[in-house]
Amino acid sequence: MDFSLFESVLEESQIISGDGLKVRYHHIWHMDQPLKALCLLLPETTEEVSNIMKICYENDLPVVVHGGLTNLVGSTETDGHEVVISTERLNNIEEIDTSSRTMTVQAGVILENIHEAAASADLLFPLNFGARGSAQIGGIISTNAGGLRVLKYGMTRQLILGLEAVMADGSIISSMKKIIKDNSAYDVKQLFIGSEGTLGIVTKAILKLEEAPNSRNAAYIGFNDYHKVVTFLKYMDSNLAGKLSGFELIWRNSYVQMTSVSDAVRPPLPYEYNYYVLIEALGSHPQNDQIEFQVLLENAIEKEQVLDAVMAQSPSDVEWFFRIREDVNNLVDFMKHDQHFDISLPIPLIGQYIADRYKSLSQIEGVEQVFAFGHVADGNIHFMVGKTNLSPELKKQIDHCIYDGLKEMGGSVSAEHGIGTHKKDYLKLCRSIEEITLMKSIKSIMDPKSLLNPGKIF
Amino acid sequence: MDFSLFESVLEESQIISGDGLKVRYHHIWHMDQPLKALCLLLPETTEEVSNIMKICYENDLPVVVHGGLTNLVGSTETDGHEVVISTERLNNIEEIDTSSRTMTVQAGVILENIHEAAASADLLFPLNFGARGSAQIGGIISTNAGGLRVLKYGMTRQLILGLEAVMADGSIISSMKKIIKDNSAYDVKQLFIGSEGTLGIVTKAILKLEEAPNSRNAAYIGFNDYHKVVTFLKYMDSNLAGKLSGFELIWRNSYVQMTSVSDAVRPPLPYEYNYYVLIEALGSHPQNDQIEFQVLLENAIEKEQVLDAVMAQSPSDVEWFFRIREDVNNLVDFMKHDQHFDISLPIPLIGQYIADRYKSLSQIEGVEQVFAFGHVADGNIHFMVGKTNLSPELKKQIDHCIYDGLKEMGGSVSAEHGIGTHKKDYLKLCRSIEEITLMKSIKSIMDPKSLLNPGKIF
Repeated sequence: MDFSLFESVLEESQIISGDGLKVRYHHIWHMDQPLKALCLLLPETTEEVSNIMKICYENDLPVVVHGGLTNLVGSTETDGHEVVISTERLNNIEEIDTSSRTMTVQAGVILENIHEAAASADLLFPLNFGARGSAQIGGIISTNAGGLRVLKYGMTRQLILGLEAVMADGSIISSMKKIIKDNSAYDVKQLFIGSEGTLGIVTKAILKLEEAPNSRNAAYIGFNDYHKVVTFLKYMDSNLAGKLSGFELIWRNSYVQMTSVSDAVRPPLPYEYNYYVLIEALGSHPQNDQIEFQVLLENAIEKEQVLDAVMAQSPSDVEWFFRIREDVNNLVDFMKHDQHFDISLPIPLIGQYIADRYKSLSQIEGVEQVFAFGHVADGNIHFMVGKTNLSPELKKQIDHCIYDGLKEMGGSVSAEHGIGTHKKDYLKLCRSIEEITLMKSIKSIMDPKSLLNPGKIF
Repeated sequence: MDFSLFESVLEESQIISGDGLKVRYHHIWHMDQPLKALCLLLPETTEEVSNIMKICYENDLPVVVHGGLTNLVGSTETDGHEVVISTERLNNIEEIDTSSRTMTVQAGVILENIHEAAASADLLFPLNFGARGSAQIGGIISTNAGGLRVLKYGMTRQLILGLEAVMADGSIISSMKKIIKDNSAYDVKQLFIGSEGTLGIVTKAILKLEEAPNSRNAAYIGFNDYHKVVTFLKYMDSNLAGKLSGFELIWRNSYVQMTSVSDAVRPPLPYEYNYYVLIEALGSHPQNDQIEFQVLLENAIEKEQVLDAVMAQSPSDVEWFFRIREDVNNLVDFMKHDQHFDISLPIPLIGQYIADRYKSLSQIEGVEQVFAFGHVADGNIHFMVGKTNLSPELKKQIDHCIYDGLKEMGGSVSAEHGIGTHKKDYLKLCRSIEEITLMKSIKSIMDPKSLLNPGKIF
């Protein structure tokens, strides 16, 4: 390939090829696999991304965009024949507007940096998940990331006010507005959110910020019956009136494993319950909020809604409680090979569904461990399945065991990670022929040459 | 036209034509204008809507869908050559799921009935606006309605979990899921939300419900400086930590008029301030919430953040406070002819922008009154302009006076009502050529014969 094409629009230092690619990675969790690509480009402005795409469009070059590479479903995989555009130098926080409560950012800004910048203005960007130190906002938007506070603040889609993207032909589509309400015709920015880079390249966004909370309370609660978990969710959400921000469920065996590896993740509650819930509330009055939270838990115990509860007594307790839930490596490290899932289904059906899956997975030869945990208030459960080998047959057997009942239940094969390459075969299990046909027509008009993130989703 | 076409898919009583149309209306606020249409059809199921559309597609018949007709921007207007599909018999509430906190409804269910059904299950459908007694959920979804509680709960888009729509060719596209998180490829339901019936006909939806609040507090607050309004918004939002649900701003002259016509809308505060804010908070602990709300207001007065405040002391006070804001007829009745606006712009720019518009509107001959008020926390201001005559020149002059500065400010010509026919000429003032081009390509693949709500938006 003739890289001089790109030299007309980029500096030499922004074009990496040949041996330079060897220190680049395919996947942030598999750093042993070097990047396979024609070249990697490092644009610093939207115009540069636009110029790159004009060249790619003219020359029929397929393009994959790399942000933090934390997607987990193969959304950023390459075959070697693609131009990779890295957003790492698109890393400016352009503005924080404290009155509009917005932040204007380029696509490559890392989530943790957004958190810090917001906090420095007494504001909060509420989106939060384990990969916050690597995930970039462009990728977060392209995958409509969820995480730990969707219950209170919504998914990424709810937090994007303005958006700018570069289309396949290099044209720039910009709607950089700070306003919450804009019903002037179709909300086309929705198309770029959650489409995994297959419809356009997100280059800039205006994020919706919230007033920073002053109090944070957390607790672990033990249950034996799933239906009591659902009743407790309603009880806490109703009584905390907007302050309940997290409601995570961990199945007993996952909790045991998550709390066994070090003192930093020691168990807050004993190992005698079937279900462990981690709840979080964000408020504005530290003293009152703590008392209110505690009284609600005491009442729940008294009324036998819950079996046991332990409340974080300090910020470091809160950190301890969350580390247990967030450090999934404590599960992964324990497995020979791992296969993970990210399903969603209606909240009342989750208990029975997971119980059934534990049973049927245990009957598959080659399955060694099954760990379930997740954002139960969002109907989103993560599964990690440990297995003895990487055979495609075993993978398929496990996939089918997890996915096969979902369609009838109105569930989804991907609550938050997306389809990428890993779940392509299962898309039809949760979307109808009519939906997929419509998606493909949209893809065909927005990316007529199929250059954007080829081979992903469909 | 040969109505027997439709007799193959509907009962005779579901087809209205000729004289039958005379008792039907063009617009709910102009009940003197009878409906002009080829015929009006009254389907009772999604399948009937689908069958109607198959016939219309086959025979190139344009279609306009009529719900509650409260859109205000000509979105449901007809010329006389269209088939009108009324959703009024699609009025079943199919299910309330208290654990999933969802309600499944057909498109013709009226918002107020949704409110009542949710309340009967101790839940809340938070969307709320003046036309709730007429507006139907299908139209609400098609226009992405906003209203009085967007600040806390979001616009309609944020409250729709599942959606079913009939496409131009009669095919049914269904994604009736109760789940909050579904990242399985493109979220195509977003296309039907806010596209004013031009891309498909919404027939069914699954609504996201919230736990019902137990306390409701409200107050009027007086200010002379706009920037203090913004500071107060941040102060209350920060301190109420998720409980602040409404923050409405009324300019002095609008407040005077709104509180002058009867004892039911008597003024809660005297006429001496430049700005009046109506705030609402929804919580779960009546006694504590009232004390907290009061203390916050007292502190604001003490710190001279606000000049005056009066708090509702009873549910009937709350009703009184809201009646003032909601009964816009108290403004309309006062005008010879009215022209209304529904703009949005970044919150910090609103004060100066509106002040400038008051000045320049007053210099237009034929303008008699100018009233501004709106959902300031959402950056959304409504203007009502009273005028002496209906000349197109005067209308245009007023339109330009309101819209001309918006583009540079990152504003929108429609925050919540939509484009319809009334704002078509101004769409380009807030959307780029690239955005409009993309919208038109989407329209062309989803409605290739341009049969759905023809002449609207573009």
